[in-house]
Amino acid sequence: MAKPGLLVVLSGPSGVGKGTVCKALLEKDPQLVLSVSKTTRKPRPGEKEGLNYYFVSKEEFEEAILAQDFLEYAEVYGHYYGTPRQKVEKMLQQGRNVILEIDPQGALQVMKAYPQGVFIFLLPPSAADLRSRIILRGTEDQESLQKRLAAAAQEVAQAEKYNYVVVNDRIEAACERIYAIIQAEMLKVSRNKELLQAFAKEVGG
Amino acid sequence: MAKPGLLVVLSGPSGVGKGTVCKALLEKDPQLVLSVSKTTRKPRPGEKEGLNYYFVSKEEFEEAILAQDFLEYAEVYGHYYGTPRQKVEKMLQQGRNVILEIDPQGALQVMKAYPQGVFIFLLPPSAADLRSRIILRGTEDQESLQKRLAAAAQEVAQAEKYNYVVVNDRIEAACERIYAIIQAEMLKVSRNKELLQAFAKEVGG
Repeated sequence: MAKPGLLVVLSGPSGVGKGTVCKALLEKDPQLVLSVSKTTRKPRPGEKEGLNYYFVSKEEFEEAILAQDFLEYAEVYGHYYGTPRQKVEKMLQQGRNVILEIDPQGALQVMKAYPQGVFIFLLPPSAADLRSRIILRGTEDQESLQKRLAAAAQEVAQAEKYNYVVVNDRIEAACERIYAIIQAEMLKVSRNKELLQAFAKEVGG
Repeated sequence: MAKPGLLVVLSGPSGVGKGTVCKALLEKDPQLVLSVSKTTRKPRPGEKEGLNYYFVSKEEFEEAILAQDFLEYAEVYGHYYGTPRQKVEKMLQQGRNVILEIDPQGALQVMKAYPQGVFIFLLPPSAADLRSRIILRGTEDQESLQKRLAAAAQEVAQAEKYNYVVVNDRIEAACERIYAIIQAEMLKVSRNKELLQAFAKEVGG
């Protein structure tokens, strides 16, 4: 049996560049495979079944919820989005490293469902950068702006629940750091006990 | 105050190539500094004070033992060898990453004295390789050969106490893996809590 792969969860505040970093990482690391989400929304022009999403009916999605076949899911503007558990677990069992690129709410759900995952929080280069991004995106309604800032601050505060924090100052540098994390995680003794036991036995025997 | 550095402990069976890998790593990673041991043996031709060892008297060494100024020490063929605690801790406080290249007995002592260190066990490419190395080095006395093999097997069995296991199949590859481990360890959330707290406060405030 192959050694099980790593589940790598890449998250961080909205707009930090998770998608761009994830894409660069998939190009750099051929051992890594992206988990494709299921959604009930309609495909947009150019989106392909099984590449961008698995497009399913609301009924099918809700059956999968009841069957606990999501590592995490959410409803956003009336559409469901979720990470299919069985597909991910099958790839992990085959020894593939699987990456999820999801928002912090989803990441917290995955921590509960799969605590042995590798949880990486992507930070913008500075707090000022994150603030100005939120301000630029926001409406002119002062109250909702304060809410957005408070929500972002809370997301960053919850980064303490993750295993690693990576600053996205440059895509290439962030990508290198995440690649190093994946390499290091594969070298952990806890993931190589069988190798060590077989080795000790063979030397001694 | 600088963020404290990492104490990286590189160990493994005798002859696995710890010294060669360590030297290559120091060339690759300018942030890394080698801990220089104290010894009571005389300098060999070409050895330099403070570079290869700190050469001290038996009295000075024994005073340092009593003052608990060793992270680990051992007596080998009538000479003391030890890792000076204060020098290492000073470099760590200055934010330097410090590497110790020591035998498994020493590494186990450091685990007790400094459990927050990063413990890496270097393995030969195969058990057969380790066996044949021991056999080639051994005498023809069958009994002592069995003892050596049993000791090596026990050292490998104790590798489970380390954090990481790295196979030294090629020096360059082993060096890359250890470099990745150091990069990843520096990105751990547990080592970046102040950054995250300051960040969350600045975004929210």
